[in-house]
Amino acid sequence: MNTLDATHDPSLTSWVESAQSDGTDFPIQNLPFGVFRRGRGDAEVGVAIGSDVLALTPLVGAGWLGQDAQVHHAVAQGTLNALLELSEAQTRDLRRRISALLSASNGALRDAASQRASCIVPQSDVEMLMPVTVGDYTDFYASVHHATNVGSMFRPDNPLLPNYKFIPVGYHGRASSLVVGGTPVRRPWGQQKADDADAPTFAPCRLFDYEVEVGFYVRGDNDLGSSVNIAEAEGRIFGLSLVNDWSARDLQKWEYQPLGPFLAKSFATSVAPWVVTLDALAPFRVSAFERPAGDPQPLPHLDHAVNRNTGAVDMQVEAWLLTPQMRAAKHEPVRLSRGHFRDMYWTIAQMLTHHASNGCNMRAGDLLASGTVSGPEKGNRGCLLELTWRGSEPVQLPTGEERRFLIDGDELILKGYCESKSHRRIGFGECRGVVVEALPA
Amino acid sequence: MNTLDATHDPSLTSWVESAQSDGTDFPIQNLPFGVFRRGRGDAEVGVAIGSDVLALTPLVGAGWLGQDAQVHHAVAQGTLNALLELSEAQTRDLRRRISALLSASNGALRDAASQRASCIVPQSDVEMLMPVTVGDYTDFYASVHHATNVGSMFRPDNPLLPNYKFIPVGYHGRASSLVVGGTPVRRPWGQQKADDADAPTFAPCRLFDYEVEVGFYVRGDNDLGSSVNIAEAEGRIFGLSLVNDWSARDLQKWEYQPLGPFLAKSFATSVAPWVVTLDALAPFRVSAFERPAGDPQPLPHLDHAVNRNTGAVDMQVEAWLLTPQMRAAKHEPVRLSRGHFRDMYWTIAQMLTHHASNGCNMRAGDLLASGTVSGPEKGNRGCLLELTWRGSEPVQLPTGEERRFLIDGDELILKGYCESKSHRRIGFGECRGVVVEALPA
Repeated sequence: MNTLDATHDPSLTSWVESAQSDGTDFPIQNLPFGVFRRGRGDAEVGVAIGSDVLALTPLVGAGWLGQDAQVHHAVAQGTLNALLELSEAQTRDLRRRISALLSASNGALRDAASQRASCIVPQSDVEMLMPVTVGDYTDFYASVHHATNVGSMFRPDNPLLPNYKFIPVGYHGRASSLVVGGTPVRRPWGQQKADDADAPTFAPCRLFDYEVEVGFYVRGDNDLGSSVNIAEAEGRIFGLSLVNDWSARDLQKWEYQPLGPFLAKSFATSVAPWVVTLDALAPFRVSAFERPAGDPQPLPHLDHAVNRNTGAVDMQVEAWLLTPQMRAAKHEPVRLSRGHFRDMYWTIAQMLTHHASNGCNMRAGDLLASGTVSGPEKGNRGCLLELTWRGSEPVQLPTGEERRFLIDGDELILKGYCESKSHRRIGFGECRGVVVEALPA
Repeated sequence: MNTLDATHDPSLTSWVESAQSDGTDFPIQNLPFGVFRRGRGDAEVGVAIGSDVLALTPLVGAGWLGQDAQVHHAVAQGTLNALLELSEAQTRDLRRRISALLSASNGALRDAASQRASCIVPQSDVEMLMPVTVGDYTDFYASVHHATNVGSMFRPDNPLLPNYKFIPVGYHGRASSLVVGGTPVRRPWGQQKADDADAPTFAPCRLFDYEVEVGFYVRGDNDLGSSVNIAEAEGRIFGLSLVNDWSARDLQKWEYQPLGPFLAKSFATSVAPWVVTLDALAPFRVSAFERPAGDPQPLPHLDHAVNRNTGAVDMQVEAWLLTPQMRAAKHEPVRLSRGHFRDMYWTIAQMLTHHASNGCNMRAGDLLASGTVSGPEKGNRGCLLELTWRGSEPVQLPTGEERRFLIDGDELILKGYCESKSHRRIGFGECRGVVVEALPA
């Protein structure tokens, strides 16, 4: 259970001035982890603070991160994987030490000019890298609104299948094609068949879509053959991050039965560079989705029981679009949708517990994603398939353009944040990707 | 293209006597790779020869494996992954050097008593380990007989979907739960719903099944956004191995729509310890599956063109069962089925090319599996679901027992081999697994 402590105190301020800005994603209450490099240098573990990155490795020698050799080892790697092998207590202690070191009242690093210069780097001067080497990537389907909308297009007679309200439906995704936000994404080729055609053709995808999702990274390991009790599931989740599950809808429609989506997804999946810890999200925990009257209660092994009141995360996720024409006209990106992660039918703990309920070994660094975050209103729909209702209701853009699906040069930008009156805003940064043209024939 | 050379000469003999036995899986013409350890020692790369293992690392120092530092590095690892990063020419050269060293006419190692003692170890004295650390595991569905049989049980009105004859249908599997043959496999818990029940229950799987498959390991890497031309696909395949895709049929039936199998498979998948190289299989290449009149030809990017005559592998795969009662009565295992890998609707090259056709990056060490190898006759059916027609026609065993699905203590043994009148038998060893009881509630 994540309880509030001094790191969450909304009155806590940092000597990093940009962290005081109201609109920042990264106040001292956040402290998300990521991996970056300076120039052509090695990958380093860092923490976002305001518009800067705090590099962790240089802090070890001065003893500022404590004396735990496992922690020292973990922050000196080129990915977060070793950090994900630490215990919840170890990463919470690390968070507290970083919070203390960055707090306005602490002069240790603030006043050590040369050390400060080696540790604090503007985010604009670094390149963000894949935060985690993902062993297995699993994608869920946890928004009942998304499942109902998509189901009604792919299976009009049978939109929501009978298992949906009992099982957090998910499928294995492709780990090799995960890329960090900012990586251009190439339009895939694939088989597609028109409804009135006798046979498919092999051609570049025409119905290129994104999906706004929330991913979460697994902490620690359970042995093959063992499961994860729902009460312990959150202890096995390190943090959350934005995920864009790019989708080739024409490929998907033709291929997905009977074994599920495959090449419609595996050409690329973008993950945001910053991972926000569950610890940082403690002030934004809210009741799990309240099931409508008549819906079944979760089976006992998936029932939150003690923490149903804090099972969900009150997080907003947004999709923004910047087209080539908007870029040329110096338009700002336009927001396409805003969804609420608390609207998901299944919680992150339920997804993880379900995944391991057959004895599947979940490993530190595995990535689970929620599926498209959509809500009941049109403005909540987290992909173009739903927003434009399969292209029939195009999105109107300020340049006079319209979009049914993405064209080459379009940049899709995911944003996410938690806000409340009583706490500082916790942001997830951005997860960006530009669509680039398909390879020639 | 794999052409015949001196390593395939059926008259070639080895000074390792057990390699001369007619029934051996591992004559000098085979030389499959695996990973083993002696006692509690480190993992070592080895090659099977007769009933022995040839350890490769000790050969490096004497110069017997040539002077290529990349090869020296690769054979000194604890997995085959670095070997899978070598070029086809490098591993072919390595194969030729090993063949020469083991041939009866070569005294170099044969007569060097102390080196021979350090290199040649009885297989019965070593423990076989996971041969490859698999990045991504993909499971196909390439037997039209299996797809039709299973489809007719799960979707009686619509057994073979319209995409089947155009797409090598496949889905992402779980990499973390791959285990080496010999590892006991725990019966999973999971949600299952009786046809006449209103709601599912969560209980140990009752319909525990195996699937006989042929896996193949990817050599080398292609960048994300690039594809693999069908003419180059076999150059990207290092070798083949037996795979048992354990399946919980009750979980599968309830969960698999709309996103495919998930927990019904991810509790364990067994891979055989020995990987037989495509080079070793050169004498057993035969025409790709001849499509019945009326079936569509593959789309051009999946059409073998030049190598349609050698696209398939003439390999037999068998499932054998040893029950606790048989074990107690000292019965030998009984064969349940024998399938022919050449009967698959899609070839290994077509599966790999399809997989990368959307730009998906295939990495050295990725594992692709064929799906259940079934044929047109009942005796060809590679899983109990088909063999017993969903339990309605139980298998009769010599003890008087019968099996609809596997019970605790049952051991399933996969075997595979290629045989012809003109070449030595090439075997795949075994892939074994004992079913162990589910965890208590």
